[in-house]
Amino acid sequence: MECVGLLVIVLLVIIEVENGFAKLRKRDFQVEAQGHGANMCEVLEKQGTGEQFYPDCIRHNRVKRVCDSKTFIRYQCCSGYKKVEGKSGCPGLKPLKNLVESLKDLGLTEFLRLLKNTDLEDNLAYQGAFTIFAPVNEAFSNLSYTDRQRLYPWTYNAPSIMHYHVVSGRQNYTDFRRHKEVPTLYYGEKKIRINKYSFGVGAVNCARITLPNQLATNGIIHVIDKVLKPLDYIGSIADVILKNTMYSTFATVLYRAEMVEFLRDNKHYTVFAPSNSAFERLSESLRRKVLRDKATAQAVVKYHIIKGVYCEDAVIISCGLTTLEGDRLTFRCRQDGSYVDDAKVIQGDITAKNGVVHGISKVILPDSVKDMLQLSRDLSLNTFVELTHKTGMEDELETRPDFTLFAPSDAAFAALPPVYFALLQSQPSAMERLIRYHTINGKIKMNDMVGEQSFQSGLDSRLKVNVFRNGITLDDAQFLQSDKECNNGIVHIINKVLIPPEQRLKELIAADADISTFKAAIDTARLSNSLTENGQFTVLAPTNHAFRVMRSSELDKYLNNPPVLRKLIERHISNKTVISCGITPESIYTINSKQSEPIELYRNGRGTIWVNNYAKVLSADKIALNGVLMKIDRILACETCKNP
Amino acid sequence: MECVGLLVIVLLVIIEVENGFAKLRKRDFQVEAQGHGANMCEVLEKQGTGEQFYPDCIRHNRVKRVCDSKTFIRYQCCSGYKKVEGKSGCPGLKPLKNLVESLKDLGLTEFLRLLKNTDLEDNLAYQGAFTIFAPVNEAFSNLSYTDRQRLYPWTYNAPSIMHYHVVSGRQNYTDFRRHKEVPTLYYGEKKIRINKYSFGVGAVNCARITLPNQLATNGIIHVIDKVLKPLDYIGSIADVILKNTMYSTFATVLYRAEMVEFLRDNKHYTVFAPSNSAFERLSESLRRKVLRDKATAQAVVKYHIIKGVYCEDAVIISCGLTTLEGDRLTFRCRQDGSYVDDAKVIQGDITAKNGVVHGISKVILPDSVKDMLQLSRDLSLNTFVELTHKTGMEDELETRPDFTLFAPSDAAFAALPPVYFALLQSQPSAMERLIRYHTINGKIKMNDMVGEQSFQSGLDSRLKVNVFRNGITLDDAQFLQSDKECNNGIVHIINKVLIPPEQRLKELIAADADISTFKAAIDTARLSNSLTENGQFTVLAPTNHAFRVMRSSELDKYLNNPPVLRKLIERHISNKTVISCGITPESIYTINSKQSEPIELYRNGRGTIWVNNYAKVLSADKIALNGVLMKIDRILACETCKNP
Repeated sequence: MECVGLLVIVLLVIIEVENGFAKLRKRDFQVEAQGHGANMCEVLEKQGTGEQFYPDCIRHNRVKRVCDSKTFIRYQCCSGYKKVEGKSGCPGLKPLKNLVESLKDLGLTEFLRLLKNTDLEDNLAYQGAFTIFAPVNEAFSNLSYTDRQRLYPWTYNAPSIMHYHVVSGRQNYTDFRRHKEVPTLYYGEKKIRINKYSFGVGAVNCARITLPNQLATNGIIHVIDKVLKPLDYIGSIADVILKNTMYSTFATVLYRAEMVEFLRDNKHYTVFAPSNSAFERLSESLRRKVLRDKATAQAVVKYHIIKGVYCEDAVIISCGLTTLEGDRLTFRCRQDGSYVDDAKVIQGDITAKNGVVHGISKVILPDSVKDMLQLSRDLSLNTFVELTHKTGMEDELETRPDFTLFAPSDAAFAALPPVYFALLQSQPSAMERLIRYHTINGKIKMNDMVGEQSFQSGLDSRLKVNVFRNGITLDDAQFLQSDKECNNGIVHIINKVLIPPEQRLKELIAADADISTFKAAIDTARLSNSLTENGQFTVLAPTNHAFRVMRSSELDKYLNNPPVLRKLIERHISNKTVISCGITPESIYTINSKQSEPIELYRNGRGTIWVNNYAKVLSADKIALNGVLMKIDRILACETCKNP
Repeated sequence: MECVGLLVIVLLVIIEVENGFAKLRKRDFQVEAQGHGANMCEVLEKQGTGEQFYPDCIRHNRVKRVCDSKTFIRYQCCSGYKKVEGKSGCPGLKPLKNLVESLKDLGLTEFLRLLKNTDLEDNLAYQGAFTIFAPVNEAFSNLSYTDRQRLYPWTYNAPSIMHYHVVSGRQNYTDFRRHKEVPTLYYGEKKIRINKYSFGVGAVNCARITLPNQLATNGIIHVIDKVLKPLDYIGSIADVILKNTMYSTFATVLYRAEMVEFLRDNKHYTVFAPSNSAFERLSESLRRKVLRDKATAQAVVKYHIIKGVYCEDAVIISCGLTTLEGDRLTFRCRQDGSYVDDAKVIQGDITAKNGVVHGISKVILPDSVKDMLQLSRDLSLNTFVELTHKTGMEDELETRPDFTLFAPSDAAFAALPPVYFALLQSQPSAMERLIRYHTINGKIKMNDMVGEQSFQSGLDSRLKVNVFRNGITLDDAQFLQSDKECNNGIVHIINKVLIPPEQRLKELIAADADISTFKAAIDTARLSNSLTENGQFTVLAPTNHAFRVMRSSELDKYLNNPPVLRKLIERHISNKTVISCGITPESIYTINSKQSEPIELYRNGRGTIWVNNYAKVLSADKIALNGVLMKIDRILACETCKNP
């Protein structure tokens, strides 16, 4: 029995539309109590406007803000109950009346007045059961002349459209689902379309149900905010768009995409139709492509179509919608109107037989029709876009076929040493080399990358991939976003600017005065050639200070015995590359040294890395052509060095 | 970046299949801690069997029992982590290895052994990235001879089916959705079908993924519980059913319903196919109808088809599924096997190119093909069915066209006075009259009923409907279930046995010695005729005791003045019927008396009704032909009687 659900509705209100929304005026017996009580209901009220949402019409747990405005809960008598002098809560249970009397009690005087012109009035008083979708009084004042005439049966040789507001049987709001079509009494069959959304709001032909489930002895009344127009006479979505000159460019694109018939289909869609001026704001080349190339036209059109009917009047929160193209758009109600992504709805809720059309101010482009420059802009890669402009590489981003771009985020550029960044900016050719290092030929998705793979970049040096449990690294950078695909490539956003290494480990070590003792030891042990070999090594280089604090007797033992010294140095080298961010915080990552003792790298919560619970890593992730260099503050203990 | 999600997987296990389920054997370093710790994961374990469900594979908040068995949470190291001597939690982070080495670490030796016969081994070690769906060792021992041969590339002039287990790129479990088809390396294109359910479990071609997201440097491994067979070679759902002689009757029904081509479609379905013996258990007449009548065959077939693929192996909790017919079935995993409603799955997971077939032991019938007798049985209206049998009315229930039955529940019959019930049972004709009073011609749905409507029952007396805020009443009964429609009518289940009234209010009052003073007063006031009029009155009759406790001076004032007495009696009569259950507990329901003073009926939480905060209702809901009688313990105060 669904009847129990009906108790939680509030009735003690009459309705007044203000700014297109139903606003509820307090009656004498409205409850002012702030707490619960018998037969009291929680009504969600939008702050400032007084607009209210009844329990059945909203899911409190899902809706915290309405059209980006704050809300609060007001306690009122539930539908059908009233206050009783001297008693708490709302114990007064009002006996049910017939539909006509109930309409009167709800103050729906315009609807009642128009009923008198029809044969409906007697039926609604004495027959049943019926469901009435009754528009508020103010809805009748916004009608066009023709629509108003249709309300009177004698104007046209046709029944009044009042019949279109009445359905046979009791249709309870709680039984409405996502999509339902119900025949009305209009010509005994013409259907209305009821949509109810996951957050609780429902609409009939995109007229919002503002007060649901008002019970009568012979039926039920749902108050709505607009007068309904029969969908049959409006035509399909395609017809609506084709006959509106505001959308003639979009109509042309629809023809080019060969999707006009598709939108005449019986399946239900929501179409966001960009206005002609929206198309004019596209770049010349892109507009031409959209208008002339079928595949592009189709991609663009599909990006503006959503399965199902989403009415502007009913979507009062942010909704993620999936386009026919497969991507997600956000349909959002703000204080100044509705938006789909950043396109504003300029003409909402143009209903059609098979859905609804919303006119919008901007063409929303799928990534697949953008070029790399446009995509970079839309991804807010501002510094990157600015630098490509300065180096004259914009054309290359627009036209280079099938490539992959690893674009550093703005924060990554900001983290560069200012002196280095200034130097780069003063040398366009160096900057161009740097940018080119961030590109590779071919489209590579993140999920196709493999550990210890390396890519041929625009320069001689290769980009090195490492796969860790917590993600993938490219040189010493991590991926912030991946797999953004446009018409000429894929972009991944990374968290560091990649600096092309120009030295092998041998030279990198030689260039650092702070590890000159280690360098000397390598030379003594005749190991320096092995550090020029190809590979992906990790070298843990103890600083000069680390050598100084070693007991001199022990140090001498090594320096005087080249085979043992060799072992000691190999104790500090691994054939595996480790990038610090690949080590999960508070975990121990173990690799083997060249001489087969374990190197246990422990990264604490603050990011400091300790080796073998003994030496501290002073700097990590210094990239060489054949590996990576870490500096440590102690010489690692070497078991095999002791017993040669 | 989705990689962070990978941390919450447990690896420290090897897998062993027992009773068709993956069971996990503890390794030396398995964590025995009962609390949380760094890199520790919650694994759901089925009590008794040891079967485990990993975090990505199950939603803990949605699954409390697995196949009707209790579960508990075990804490283990997350995938890729291990215990470290002397440290809490699982801080040891294991470096990634390539796919072949990772398969070895997972103990998937059978899969590895068969890899050696193919060119895949080298690829999996050195190329990438790939996703492997690797069956546990035990899966290979359950194969048919032919299937086993297909694993070796030299047997047939075809690649090994091992290729069907490998997909290009990293396919993360968390990215799987309800339905996904993915091309494998088998002939470079043959697709596998991945289904993931709302409760977290996922399956590939109905092989359950028992251990997901085992990372390798060059890909990812998902452990599954069966060897995969290419869907293409199996054929469509229709083919599967038509070539299996166990389902030849169902195949005949499919042809009769003209739905064979429908099941060759590319859309994906789950079909519950009743075995031949299931059809033999249907009644002769119904079986004939299902086999010969197209509409019936179609209704039955559609009742066995679900959109989407639901694998028996993966549905480990109760799932409500919607049939093509629109009704809901429950697919349930119990300790002794799977059931759909009360039909047992006797052959599960017969995969097909466009879905899956489960053989079942019983035909599940939609209400629309049942007759009223069958439907009453299936609704467990046991006493009602027994009484129709005793009175020989079974045929009528089976064959009477288009009628509505108000069937009292078993509890309603049990609540009858035993003497009355015994009397009825001894008089079949009285019983038949009673049953007939519960039927009306035509199909009436609850949502079409109207307040103060009355139906012509099988007897002279009419059934009276009243609509209250908390539901609809029929005479003094409430609806427990409504609108159950079968092929020859609609049944509503009600909470009381309806006793046909045989008297008007006048006679009902006269028959009750306890209110004889009231009766005498009515006669004196010459109002008795008004209590024989047609209508739906409520009479609140004060008992003799109520008159006795009245001050005799006041009583005399009334008795000596017939016009005032008349007002006093009309003070106790209303033109509106009230049934006590229509008054919400702790609410005040107000009607007007004939003489226009309010009658406020307050029902407290225990069901006692008070009138005007003064008189107590001693008995309510006594039904007469023209209204209802309540007895009260006080005479109501009468304002208008005082000032005539």
